[in-house]
Amino acid sequence: MISGKIRWGILGTGYIAEKFAEALSFIPDAELVAVGSRSKNTAEKFASKYKIPNPHGSYKGLIEDPEVDVVYVGTLNNVHKDNCIMAINAGKPILCEKPFMVNSKDAIEVITLAREKKVFLMEALWTRFIPAFTEARKMWESGVIGDVRMVSSDFGFLCERSTTNPLFVSELAGGAFMDVGPYSVSMAHILFGEPDEITALADMGPTGVDEQIGMLFKYKGGEIVLGYSSFNVESPKEATISGTKGYIRIHEPFFCPTGFTLHLNGQKPQVFESPLEGNGWNYEAVEVMECLRAGKLECDLVPHEETLALGRTMDRFRAHIGLKYKGIE
Amino acid sequence: MISGKIRWGILGTGYIAEKFAEALSFIPDAELVAVGSRSKNTAEKFASKYKIPNPHGSYKGLIEDPEVDVVYVGTLNNVHKDNCIMAINAGKPILCEKPFMVNSKDAIEVITLAREKKVFLMEALWTRFIPAFTEARKMWESGVIGDVRMVSSDFGFLCERSTTNPLFVSELAGGAFMDVGPYSVSMAHILFGEPDEITALADMGPTGVDEQIGMLFKYKGGEIVLGYSSFNVESPKEATISGTKGYIRIHEPFFCPTGFTLHLNGQKPQVFESPLEGNGWNYEAVEVMECLRAGKLECDLVPHEETLALGRTMDRFRAHIGLKYKGIE
Repeated sequence: MISGKIRWGILGTGYIAEKFAEALSFIPDAELVAVGSRSKNTAEKFASKYKIPNPHGSYKGLIEDPEVDVVYVGTLNNVHKDNCIMAINAGKPILCEKPFMVNSKDAIEVITLAREKKVFLMEALWTRFIPAFTEARKMWESGVIGDVRMVSSDFGFLCERSTTNPLFVSELAGGAFMDVGPYSVSMAHILFGEPDEITALADMGPTGVDEQIGMLFKYKGGEIVLGYSSFNVESPKEATISGTKGYIRIHEPFFCPTGFTLHLNGQKPQVFESPLEGNGWNYEAVEVMECLRAGKLECDLVPHEETLALGRTMDRFRAHIGLKYKGIE
Repeated sequence: MISGKIRWGILGTGYIAEKFAEALSFIPDAELVAVGSRSKNTAEKFASKYKIPNPHGSYKGLIEDPEVDVVYVGTLNNVHKDNCIMAINAGKPILCEKPFMVNSKDAIEVITLAREKKVFLMEALWTRFIPAFTEARKMWESGVIGDVRMVSSDFGFLCERSTTNPLFVSELAGGAFMDVGPYSVSMAHILFGEPDEITALADMGPTGVDEQIGMLFKYKGGEIVLGYSSFNVESPKEATISGTKGYIRIHEPFFCPTGFTLHLNGQKPQVFESPLEGNGWNYEAVEVMECLRAGKLECDLVPHEETLALGRTMDRFRAHIGLKYKGIE
């Protein structure tokens, strides 16, 4: 258990690492004390930008830094596994960026080790901790929109194809499905859990990864979920939860919303707003800190079983569209 | 070729027949002169409500009425074929409600006959003639939103399951896919034509028809289309056309909209409005009248080839979800 300020170390120096560094500045009792990169130079540049005292030119250096209480893993998909195993063996609690692992076999291995070593571990499903999302979720869970029968969500963004951008590199587990697909898969799981049936159609690009994908999920009760992920277009980035009494539209971007609209059948729409305090990523960081202070090994909203289930569903979709990562499996 | 007022006869007395009767009242040079039903009593009730001089207690009576210039077929799905064949043989031009036929085999038979007999025939895809829809279509066709890569649309409405409601009766070719699915299938075809691949997941209800369905279409260029039809929920009823430069959201209900919003990447959304003059169904009726006056045998926006292509795609989806109508095929 940890009391007082909690000292964070960030693994990685890309876009998401920057966002997480900014996020910590919104949390009074969080301290960002270290950053780790494969290159000392990159770590130092990042450290200077965010005023971080300990830059490390290796992942190992960051993980073994005695001043670090908890590690945020914001590296590329294909090294999450090694990063997590190293941190668990060093007894360091982990918040690991999604997708947690490249496949569920790796997820089982890492989670099993975390359980054995009694180390806190959580997948960074930040959306679940955003206030407007939490409010919307409370509303549909309270039954206001009746029985939920359909959910849809889309997350497409424009990303020019390039053989040097990791998002297009098969060996780095790139592609739209792995990058933004987890948001749609997570929406399905939040409402209904693991699907009974799935199907999908994907546009496989010349670099061997999917560049856009449409997904369908079906459940035993007949519920249907639609999902869409893309590097081809800036899509509306909305989520819609439709029930027998109405629907909730989570405003764009649904993965970090500041509001939602309730449409009850035959009534005027009602808008609900919950502005962000911070950049959005701070909420999941606060959650991790609360878990650590409470001595928890997993988070109630993102328990290990949830991460494993998401991994299994991701595997099923990849098998369905024939998406195989070179050199990984 | 017809000049002067055009005299309509309506086959059927249900919801859609009522809407069409109302629609004709908005067209100065249209006259509603006859209605036909299997029952004389029903025909007379309908005729009295809409001040129609000639009620017919049989479909044959309506079709052979010499005062009728053109027949609107608004009967149940399973009798469209017989109605159309009878009208073609009587030399009567036809506007036939969608879904045109129960399967594409029947569509080929009816269209072949219409071509042989040189009788005007058009599937009632009313959306394509609604001003706001036409304006939105012009916009995406002009390239304002770049290359279109994704289209999605949903049409769900709440409809309580009942063994007496034709929408739930297998022998009458019921189900959400056949009833509101044509709108999503049509959206895919408007943009990209016949899909290269399709897949779907459907909730088959206890009466043997689908009660909700999620559909995916994929094209050779990698374009993806998502569709959703349902009797379970009042869904948003929107259509989104997403391109590399932005997207167009057709306002609800997208099948009869009064406006749309243009979202260009990085810019403020722009709303465009084109109010309806009439109830929406009048536009397709006007189109039919213009075609008749021009001596056309098919409509440029809904040519026979389009109706046949839609029928083939519908067949593929039904085969995919195992939807078979009792006693029909």
